[in-house]
Amino acid sequence: MIRVGIVGGSGYTGVQLMALLLSHPEVLLKWVTSRKFEGQPVFETFGALRSLTDLAFTKYSPDLLGEVDLVFTAVPHGQAMGIVSEVVQHGKRVIDLSADFRFQDVVLYEQTYQPHTAPELAKRAVYGLPELFYGEIKEADLVGNPGCYPTSAILASAPLVQEGLWDSHFPIIVDAKSGVSGAGRDPNLTTHFPEADEGLTPYKVLVHRHQPEIASILQKSSNERGLVYFVPHLVPMNRGIVSTVYLRLKEAIALEDLHRLYEVFYNGKPFVRVLPTGKAPSSHHVRGSNFCDIGLALAPDGKTVVAMAAIDNLIKGASGQAVQNMNILAGFEESAGLAQPPLFP
Amino acid sequence: MIRVGIVGGSGYTGVQLMALLLSHPEVLLKWVTSRKFEGQPVFETFGALRSLTDLAFTKYSPDLLGEVDLVFTAVPHGQAMGIVSEVVQHGKRVIDLSADFRFQDVVLYEQTYQPHTAPELAKRAVYGLPELFYGEIKEADLVGNPGCYPTSAILASAPLVQEGLWDSHFPIIVDAKSGVSGAGRDPNLTTHFPEADEGLTPYKVLVHRHQPEIASILQKSSNERGLVYFVPHLVPMNRGIVSTVYLRLKEAIALEDLHRLYEVFYNGKPFVRVLPTGKAPSSHHVRGSNFCDIGLALAPDGKTVVAMAAIDNLIKGASGQAVQNMNILAGFEESAGLAQPPLFP
Amino acid sequence: MIRVGIVGGSGYTGVQLMALLLSHPEVLLKWVTSRKFEGQPVFETFGALRSLTDLAFTKYSPDLLGEVDLVFTAVPHGQAMGIVSEVVQHGKRVIDLSADFRFQDVVLYEQTYQPHTAPELAKRAVYGLPELFYGEIKEADLVGNPGCYPTSAILASAPLVQEGLWDSHFPIIVDAKSGVSGAGRDPNLTTHFPEADEGLTPYKVLVHRHQPEIASILQKSSNERGLVYFVPHLVPMNRGIVSTVYLRLKEAIALEDLHRLYEVFYNGKPFVRVLPTGKAPSSHHVRGSNFCDIGLALAPDGKTVVAMAAIDNLIKGASGQAVQNMNILAGFEESAGLAQPPLFP
Amino acid sequence: MIRVGIVGGSGYTGVQLMALLLSHPEVLLKWVTSRKFEGQPVFETFGALRSLTDLAFTKYSPDLLGEVDLVFTAVPHGQAMGIVSEVVQHGKRVIDLSADFRFQDVVLYEQTYQPHTAPELAKRAVYGLPELFYGEIKEADLVGNPGCYPTSAILASAPLVQEGLWDSHFPIIVDAKSGVSGAGRDPNLTTHFPEADEGLTPYKVLVHRHQPEIASILQKSSNERGLVYFVPHLVPMNRGIVSTVYLRLKEAIALEDLHRLYEVFYNGKPFVRVLPTGKAPSSHHVRGSNFCDIGLALAPDGKTVVAMAAIDNLIKGASGQAVQNMNILAGFEESAGLAQPPLFP
Repeated sequence: MIRVGIVGGSGYTGVQLMALLLSHPEVLLKWVTSRKFEGQPVFETFGALRSLTDLAFTKYSPDLLGEVDLVFTAVPHGQAMGIVSEVVQHGKRVIDLSADFRFQDVVLYEQTYQPHTAPELAKRAVYGLPELFYGEIKEADLVGNPGCYPTSAILASAPLVQEGLWDSHFPIIVDAKSGVSGAGRDPNLTTHFPEADEGLTPYKVLVHRHQPEIASILQKSSNERGLVYFVPHLVPMNRGIVSTVYLRLKEAIALEDLHRLYEVFYNGKPFVRVLPTGKAPSSHHVRGSNFCDIGLALAPDGKTVVAMAAIDNLIKGASGQAVQNMNILAGFEESAGLAQPPLFP
Repeated sequence: MIRVGIVGGSGYTGVQLMALLLSHPEVLLKWVTSRKFEGQPVFETFGALRSLTDLAFTKYSPDLLGEVDLVFTAVPHGQAMGIVSEVVQHGKRVIDLSADFRFQDVVLYEQTYQPHTAPELAKRAVYGLPELFYGEIKEADLVGNPGCYPTSAILASAPLVQEGLWDSHFPIIVDAKSGVSGAGRDPNLTTHFPEADEGLTPYKVLVHRHQPEIASILQKSSNERGLVYFVPHLVPMNRGIVSTVYLRLKEAIALEDLHRLYEVFYNGKPFVRVLPTGKAPSSHHVRGSNFCDIGLALAPDGKTVVAMAAIDNLIKGASGQAVQNMNILAGFEESAGLAQPPLFP
Repeated sequence: MIRVGIVGGSGYTGVQLMALLLSHPEVLLKWVTSRKFEGQPVFETFGALRSLTDLAFTKYSPDLLGEVDLVFTAVPHGQAMGIVSEVVQHGKRVIDLSADFRFQDVVLYEQTYQPHTAPELAKRAVYGLPELFYGEIKEADLVGNPGCYPTSAILASAPLVQEGLWDSHFPIIVDAKSGVSGAGRDPNLTTHFPEADEGLTPYKVLVHRHQPEIASILQKSSNERGLVYFVPHLVPMNRGIVSTVYLRLKEAIALEDLHRLYEVFYNGKPFVRVLPTGKAPSSHHVRGSNFCDIGLALAPDGKTVVAMAAIDNLIKGASGQAVQNMNILAGFEESAGLAQPPLFP
Repeated sequence: MIRVGIVGGSGYTGVQLMALLLSHPEVLLKWVTSRKFEGQPVFETFGALRSLTDLAFTKYSPDLLGEVDLVFTAVPHGQAMGIVSEVVQHGKRVIDLSADFRFQDVVLYEQTYQPHTAPELAKRAVYGLPELFYGEIKEADLVGNPGCYPTSAILASAPLVQEGLWDSHFPIIVDAKSGVSGAGRDPNLTTHFPEADEGLTPYKVLVHRHQPEIASILQKSSNERGLVYFVPHLVPMNRGIVSTVYLRLKEAIALEDLHRLYEVFYNGKPFVRVLPTGKAPSSHHVRGSNFCDIGLALAPDGKTVVAMAAIDNLIKGASGQAVQNMNILAGFEESAGLAQPPLFP
């Protein structure tokens, strides 16, 4: 049994994290903070949780840290770094869902986001993608939980990049499509129902902040330098990301060998499902679960791979992965509290 | 040819009104005002109108009134009354899309909304539902354009109420369902995509401001006093209202007679389509058009009628009806500029 | 631990039932039958279940009955009655998700559906709405699992009807709205995406087969005879039913007393959440869960009640309720395997 | 005034074509055929067209050809070739919306589709993309109307390919996203609402029949041979295609120059709107219209272009383009009957 707290629980990652932790067999959720909803019962903010918890949102204070063993921080980047430092100083482990601790290269972080006030901490943080960094996560006291897009894009391409098959003269193209919950819970015109419904729109074309995150993690895991071009699209659905990744190989490969490579790479990973050749993944089949489904296609030249990955952006792309990371570093079974099947249809 | 201006063109009724007026054969759109977007080309606010107009939003000023023959006011209730007074004083005709001139009973208006600063004007304004008040609209200089819900609810029930068939001991129940564009263009949590998508929610149950509007117009058109209970629901779609109206008759009627009654009542009305018995209307079939489709069912007792009306809330429920009113009072063909077929699917 | 089988697992209630049973701590799912997909691994039909089960669909045969303690039948009405008889003859308990055993009044069943080949069995079947018939379910060997619409409509109105407050001179009006998954998995034009998306349509107005089911259960639970008028609507969403029920009381009541009545009535029922006065239920807050949220409003006359109930049609409206019934008659905790929080957003 | 007929009017391109032709100022729609709905009034099949036409579906027969000047064929590929031959033999002009006359290279057609029974006709058919082949269309008696995906993909890439800027050592990658109406009106599991709603799925990855169509037209318009990789995705919306095209240039270019190139290329083309740099196109802004919106982005290397095109698949991607082609070859204004603004929101 582990006692945990959530700093910043009023967004969609917050409510998803609460839902997962409240039904986790090894977790005691002690408190959830929110500046905006301080004092309000959680179920008034999130009617879905009515009768499932009596917690009220509280205000963050370091005094709360004594009550818990581990903290999830789910506040925006920039705000996270200060709180995370404080939690670490109090000797508690942290899983941070912001971008603040995803970059060991602080210069790159600062180019992408803003000045970092805890660079030393950033350098020793572990990138919380368990399928690639299980061993490091197990020993970590600070995990930078991956972005939603990077989770899908990296899982789709890592086997080829790590095995040295990628011809880095050709940039990796990541054409990604996300449901609207990925934009968070603050209303704005882009996410206003009549503007988002029934249409599809590319945004932040080649300038999204997840582009350097994807590139740097692929490089870190392979020592292979190369370009990643990333184009996200907003899709009229709530949950789900599908990343369609175009990647050129140094040498031609057979589709069966390509498929086997992925199966071997993800063998024993409970949340990655490599689909049979000829099947494309769908966000339908992962909704509400921590799964990442991967499908593969190969052009007739044997060198151009289309690797597709589908996840639920709020679960494997955020809160589910955070729980998976907690399970690993707390020594629980990796899938504890994450066993619920996808919600289909 | 008529020269028109729009006061308050930055909302959904505004953009729909512009779209209709820009393709209307008898209209010259001279200006569109918006405080928020003053100076900005219309097509930057509404990318859909790119290449269709070079107008930029301007700031409202009485000086603009000299350039036009007729003004549409599409600002929120409360704001409209002052501007409308000014326009009328300048001798220009007005079609007001707010609630400010829908109530000849100013006391009822003030109970429902707020103090009225132009009560005399309100008393002589005409309720712009052409299927009931064509003659008055033809002579009007000030039209209060109906609410979206009332348009559908009144068209569904007026034939029975006006013909004196309704047993007013039984309240009329209007269970209405609307797409999200009815909530306007200002983002808030209720209309935030992830909160509106994939769910249905009743709201303002029995306390929506359209309830007295429906009741007062039915009473005005019939001298029949009785209660209307109104429950709106928010539906995960952009456009469309379906009002399901439950109404008890004084005496039993045969379904064919009921149907004939509606056909006769709406004979010659170009935008009301009374469906064959056994067919229910669908918002699918009116989307993008000024049609109101009406379907009828009758309980075995012959007395309980279910009258259903479907409209596009932004067209027959707002801007299309405003254009229809303009056509009538300007002496154009009633359907001028409103002939586009529904967009299906 | 209980060993169970599913007859007819290839529809949406089937896949939802499998998802629930596969993660139920007390259940061993032995087999699932499907004529259409016989021999095919379940995860090929339902990609969402990949890696969660190795079962393949098998063909139904009485020989299978020896392997299990309890059977869920999820085949269409008419087909169910024969299989259920067979299962009962083999001494196994059955929870039938079709309409075949929801009517103890066989004449009414036959008027509504078709000739019944097992009328004696129908007469002793128990209607599986645990909030009303817990005691009977506990002792039952055959449960007729309620329809999705009736579950919501009955839970919304039962407290008033059972307590004798309903004035049965006024019919109960049930205006219900359902997501498209309620129509099943067989494609047809009505459920074809472009025909269902972005529109709302009433259907089977006053002639839906759930109307007599609602009426007969309300009458059975109260000895109060009266009419129920039922109008369902198809809503462009996957899951969710909201029933808006209009009901007249014999005498005026205060809203607080009305609310307290519901709270007392559902006290100790783990899946009914009576919302505070002023709150309307939303299908958003129950999606993916077995909850039924109930909200209440009262007209100024104190006599006209609007009782609204929201459920997930595939869970509380079908498979979740079936598991709840199994839990009760097997002596498990009522909420075993049904504890997952709603999926929000 | 031109008299036209439609062969095969019971699908979505059919209903869209009727909607456009019925409100076209220069067109008299004489007949519409459908084997399936023969004898049925059009408005019974398509309730949206109620009161707009009294036509009933008729059965195709060459006898009908005498009544018209021009025929639209909207039957599936394979069926079209025979009818088109017949129409041409009768000396009438044809615009064929199937794939049968999109390939002058009959071998390629046969590899992609099936044996061609009218190869000579195919060789002299004109590809009906007016922005590229205006002159040929003007003189044509047989137009092969482009596919929906190719329309968007070709318009996005043609300026670079025709101007010889594309480095054909790098394949053009077309990652395309389409609404479900593109799949036609025959219900199946893929387009069943609960399977299509709220999810996104790639399909026919690298093997879709529009891939050779795109490649061959780009090559025909440029004499540049190179590969096109095409990956379509099904998006939970009714209408709309966004094609995101990745294309490498031989030499670096400045974004402003790239933008100017497109503006010059499409200067005078009434339906292509080249967006300002920094803007991405959205299917929201073209819905219900014949517009194609194009947006451009450029990687820091100055060589990797992301060209994005958005269309309404049923209008610019099918029936609107067919009307545009008719306008050109009949000598009407190119935008006659196509002036309706997009339906937004």
